[in-house]
Amino acid sequence: MDPQDHQQPELRQVLVLQPPFVFNIHEHLFADRFHVLKAYDSPLPTRDFLQANAQSVKVVLCSGIRDLPALKLVVTDATGVNHIDMAECVRRGIKVTNVGDVYSDDVADAAVGLLIDVMRRITSGERFVRDGCWTTSREYPLGAKLGGKRVGIVGLGNIGSRVATRLEAMGCIVSYTSRRKKQSTPFTFYPNILQLAFDSDALVLCCALTNNTRHMIDNKVMKALGKKGIIVNVARGALVDEVELVKCLLEGELGGVGLDVFENEPNAPRELFELDNVVFLPHAAAFTNESFYDVAQVMIANLEVFFGNKPLLTLVNNKF
Amino acid sequence: MDPQDHQQPELRQVLVLQPPFVFNIHEHLFADRFHVLKAYDSPLPTRDFLQANAQSVKVVLCSGIRDLPALKLVVTDATGVNHIDMAECVRRGIKVTNVGDVYSDDVADAAVGLLIDVMRRITSGERFVRDGCWTTSREYPLGAKLGGKRVGIVGLGNIGSRVATRLEAMGCIVSYTSRRKKQSTPFTFYPNILQLAFDSDALVLCCALTNNTRHMIDNKVMKALGKKGIIVNVARGALVDEVELVKCLLEGELGGVGLDVFENEPNAPRELFELDNVVFLPHAAAFTNESFYDVAQVMIANLEVFFGNKPLLTLVNNKF
Repeated sequence: MDPQDHQQPELRQVLVLQPPFVFNIHEHLFADRFHVLKAYDSPLPTRDFLQANAQSVKVVLCSGIRDLPALKLVVTDATGVNHIDMAECVRRGIKVTNVGDVYSDDVADAAVGLLIDVMRRITSGERFVRDGCWTTSREYPLGAKLGGKRVGIVGLGNIGSRVATRLEAMGCIVSYTSRRKKQSTPFTFYPNILQLAFDSDALVLCCALTNNTRHMIDNKVMKALGKKGIIVNVARGALVDEVELVKCLLEGELGGVGLDVFENEPNAPRELFELDNVVFLPHAAAFTNESFYDVAQVMIANLEVFFGNKPLLTLVNNKF
Repeated sequence: MDPQDHQQPELRQVLVLQPPFVFNIHEHLFADRFHVLKAYDSPLPTRDFLQANAQSVKVVLCSGIRDLPALKLVVTDATGVNHIDMAECVRRGIKVTNVGDVYSDDVADAAVGLLIDVMRRITSGERFVRDGCWTTSREYPLGAKLGGKRVGIVGLGNIGSRVATRLEAMGCIVSYTSRRKKQSTPFTFYPNILQLAFDSDALVLCCALTNNTRHMIDNKVMKALGKKGIIVNVARGALVDEVELVKCLLEGELGGVGLDVFENEPNAPRELFELDNVVFLPHAAAFTNESFYDVAQVMIANLEVFFGNKPLLTLVNNKF
């Protein structure tokens, strides 16, 4: 499809400061439909580039909103919006769309994959074979069975509820904590994380990062989970006090962790690189070929309805 | 419990030629109850040791049956009995017990773990982080979504049906092949493996190794599965023509594999050690602390009923 096919493409401006991940593969899907202003491709300094376009830009992909007085819409390619200045958006009546739940199944699969990995020692078994140890020693340490384990899900939203479905199929006993008790689930609700940790063999973190949830997994929660306890984090790194996490793991105060996210990405704590009970992913739980295509479709659909003056599809801040 | 607590412990002889895996942890559970004759611990050559005991031994753990004329029972700590001379057992009326389905949940979990691993690139993502690549390159290749994928299960028995339950919870479309169509399953039955492979994105091997199934996953099946196709094998290595498998993987004719078992264990094919789309386990899919304990219990229960002249619990060859 050619831009000329659209009505007034010059008015369908979309500013992009930094290319979102989805552009790696699907940039053409956007360029075909909208006038994509790429700040990162311009020979101008960003400030000059912005000034040249600031009066007209109504839509931005991702963040960087303070210099755009005409801004009406921020379209992010993420589920979480902790990287966007939401207070400024609220103040100025700027709408924010995320990608809804298109990542939820993939993140849930990755969470379950990480839990199986840690409990069943898959990546360490992998190293055992690849490093040639199997031929000299038959004594590979036993893992732990998933069936019957008590797994606490932190945040029973789009992702958490999908993790629960998967874990139930494996015979795990699922409980959860959440801002409020969900009406339509069979799982036991815990109003506080500490009690959930006491009563769980593993925690799977699936909640949003907010001022209330930052470092919610602290030393006390880790101690409550115990020496055999496992933590899987597919949400945001800062939910966990990473300094304490490293300390607990090095001191044997935790059973193991599966981490897709970290406090200071792309840096995973190097102190843990020698441990066999730690499984790392490079913040990839959401990323599949299929989810990338779906993300592009949701972003484009939001842009289309915005320019067509119709209601946004995945509005995050629905107060105005 | 002390041997003296039992009636005539000397008559409750159990011969062990090589210690089964379960002895690593639970040998005492057996020694407490039975007179365990350990050929491998004796200063005598095995032949002499056997001759000294051959006339009385009625029960053997695992294999090595030709020199034991009084043998009535073989108790294996495995599910498969392909390592036991079943023809000789049938000829002589020797009964064989396996461990029933105590491993099934753990093997199914490992199969699903391997499938997630290969599709979502977990172990290669692990290496990417651990090798320090993430800090220099953000471009980690995308994996594939599990939801909507057509997974063919080869052998819908205790393990295969549990794999199916787990994959359904992830939104996979499950089909299967098996010796005969199962009456009570909603999954599509394929009478032959080649057609199943044509119609599948991944195959999970869960069937027994027999003369009929040896090398059933041959070059034709791999080609039918195709360049994006994935194979997970948690059953027996010889189900797959490993030479062809290596060739297909090196030539990019298969999407990836997750292998717990190999034709020549403990040797995994070294040619694959550099590939990122291969995940290895050291024949550990069945092994957890929990399954080992359960295995000991099943073996002991079979021994108890045998010595008590009651029906065996997990008889494999139930023709006599």
